Amino acid sequence: MHPPFAIRPLSLAALLVLSCSAAVAKAPALSPAAAMPTLSTNITAAEVLAAQRAWGNALVQIATDFETGGIAKATATANAVLDAAYAYQLGPVLFKPTLTTAPHTFRTTREGALAYFVGHNPNFPNDTGFALNGWRSVEIRNVAMHLQGNIAKTMGNVMITDRNGKVTTVDKTWGYLRDDQGRLRIVLHHSSLPVTN
Amino acid sequence: MHPPFAIRPLSLAALLVLSCSAAVAKAPALSPAAAMPTLSTNITAAEVLAAQRAWGNALVQIATDFETGGIAKATATANAVLDAAYAYQLGPVLFKPTLTTAPHTFRTTREGALAYFVGHNPNFPNDTGFALNGWRSVEIRNVAMHLQGNIAKTMGNVMITDRNGKVTTVDKTWGYLRDDQGRLRIVLHHSSLPVTN
Amino acid sequence: MHPPFAIRPLSLAALLVLSCSAAVAKAPALSPAAAMPTLSTNITAAEVLAAQRAWGNALVQIATDFETGGIAKATATANAVLDAAYAYQLGPVLFKPTLTTAPHTFRTTREGALAYFVGHNPNFPNDTGFALNGWRSVEIRNVAMHLQGNIAKTMGNVMITDRNGKVTTVDKTWGYLRDDQGRLRIVLHHSSLPVTN
Amino acid sequence: MHPPFAIRPLSLAALLVLSCSAAVAKAPALSPAAAMPTLSTNITAAEVLAAQRAWGNALVQIATDFETGGIAKATATANAVLDAAYAYQLGPVLFKPTLTTAPHTFRTTREGALAYFVGHNPNFPNDTGFALNGWRSVEIRNVAMHLQGNIAKTMGNVMITDRNGKVTTVDKTWGYLRDDQGRLRIVLHHSSLPVTN
Repeated sequence: MHPPFAIRPLSLAALLVLSCSAAVAKAPALSPAAAMPTLSTNITAAEVLAAQRAWGNALVQIATDFETGGIAKATATANAVLDAAYAYQLGPVLFKPTLTTAPHTFRTTREGALAYFVGHNPNFPNDTGFALNGWRSVEIRNVAMHLQGNIAKTMGNVMITDRNGKVTTVDKTWGYLRDDQGRLRIVLHHSSLPVTN
Repeated sequence: MHPPFAIRPLSLAALLVLSCSAAVAKAPALSPAAAMPTLSTNITAAEVLAAQRAWGNALVQIATDFETGGIAKATATANAVLDAAYAYQLGPVLFKPTLTTAPHTFRTTREGALAYFVGHNPNFPNDTGFALNGWRSVEIRNVAMHLQGNIAKTMGNVMITDRNGKVTTVDKTWGYLRDDQGRLRIVLHHSSLPVTN
Repeated sequence: MHPPFAIRPLSLAALLVLSCSAAVAKAPALSPAAAMPTLSTNITAAEVLAAQRAWGNALVQIATDFETGGIAKATATANAVLDAAYAYQLGPVLFKPTLTTAPHTFRTTREGALAYFVGHNPNFPNDTGFALNGWRSVEIRNVAMHLQGNIAKTMGNVMITDRNGKVTTVDKTWGYLRDDQGRLRIVLHHSSLPVTN
Repeated sequence: MHPPFAIRPLSLAALLVLSCSAAVAKAPALSPAAAMPTLSTNITAAEVLAAQRAWGNALVQIATDFETGGIAKATATANAVLDAAYAYQLGPVLFKPTLTTAPHTFRTTREGALAYFVGHNPNFPNDTGFALNGWRSVEIRNVAMHLQGNIAKTMGNVMITDRNGKVTTVDKTWGYLRDDQGRLRIVLHHSSLPVTN
């Protein structure tokens, strides 16, 4: 019998695909080209916003999966998120998570990213699992966006609220790359705590 | 007093700019990002169609300028068209005009392109001036389009009608590159006569 | 026992992969970045030339397979070539073959491309199979090249020699797109017979 | 007579151009294409490293100009740096400087970037001028790099040493865009202080 937490990641992966992908071969809905076969790899602002929402939903999903199914369930979900929403299968990802410290500040490998989200990896002993902290909602406020073909970038604030209503605000830069299946993948992710005076 | 042919090219250049450019820094009108500062270099299908219409209008303009102002007027207009609508200032253009022959089949330089359109260049002795043939209208029927960031490509037929109503049909591939001012420029242009059995 | 023509296409596909691919995640050999993990999607001139040679080799392969194994063998090879070297799985390809005529001038679908190379498709009744004409060697002379990230374009002449030593020269434009596996795929192919006076 | 600080920025701008630009129309030195006219917009790893060194040199230049010529000289140099090395003329830049605080955390406009580097802008009252802090040298240690046509991105640490030998280390992400003149321009710049336990 498959335990429920083994099924969940697939559902989440499906959700991510639905929310942040678009067929490469489909053009955005532009009336002048309505009838014309088009190969468009251009990322739209709407797709970027959908990918950001999917990231927020995924973080909350890992947190709640941890509460209902423990570390095994949270890890399975985190693995599914990394496979569906990040670009580690294409090469090194430029990932500087919010709370990492030297000598493991940058997580250019999938292993390092997974360790950051769910901890429990002796190669990253300071990681306690950022995604395990009872997150309940994520709000994203972009200040500007770059759209350049199959590459998009955003900068802004992300507000993450936990089950006690405590809000953590971070300064966030995301870079996306559309893959051959049409999916937006995170290729760049720099998150930092705001400077306080 | 400015001779009319000295003024005309500027007007045509302005027309080309109006018809085939868009500010790089302005995003396409997408409601989700309405309030967000955006740098978008993505070419839209509508921009490609506008650039194609501008090319057709420019060809007719050169032809009618030749009839009203002679070769000087036609040449001035052709120069303005090349500066506004092709990308010779950025590098070699992949240009194979409809009727060129070896050893001057390919016109990767601005000089060669001008010679093709208006002739009168001893370096290209077979050029009689394609744009001088009494063209009156241009119809474009694309069969497919590629949109990839600041690069776009189309393929299809172009039907050019002269003052006697004679229609010349060509098989045409165009490639465009958006420049830093937001203008679409032709970087690739392969035109060929249809094969007949 | 597998018939030989069923094995051959796989070998050819492997050859194509070897000759025109490079891992996306691998940077070109640049000394300054030797030790740095790099995701590079940039196509190099050397990769373009290799993809062109692979196309020429594939054309000769289909022709010789036709002679040794008949239409079944040639078709299997042509299918392998289309899957390995063209981009039909990503969207419509801008393909205007040398000898096609209206209303089937443009082959934006995989079916149309296959019909052009090996014929035998009632939907394309004028196709006699361009690749079946006893080709023995292919020479490519580019006049210029565009390299723009995962997109590359070339223009020039291609000389194809058959078993009788007869040379067919065409004017050729190719466009390539690197896929997520690192392979260069033809997304644009405009071929035309030279104009003769 | 021109005051020396009016001349200096021009020299610096020239230096920046020399150190971080390359003609768009020139291909990287690749032997197979040596003789072929090429339009290449691809950014190389070497160009990225040169642009990073130029940024470090510019920061030190502003600091030393402040010491030798006061705020006027430093401001003139900072203006030249922004014009030569950032992309504000193309659109909003995704710039999160190291020490900015809400509500002015992000500097997507040129004015905000200038205020961060040299202060003295009442619209940004918390800015004391980051570049005025006696910087003497800059060391850059990238952990990974992305090269995608006319876009490049890096992530890593930057160590900035002041005149007293004190070293400030930051976590840094840079994004570059090559402009039509061939120059690499910073379109993304996220800098943050390392988290300390």
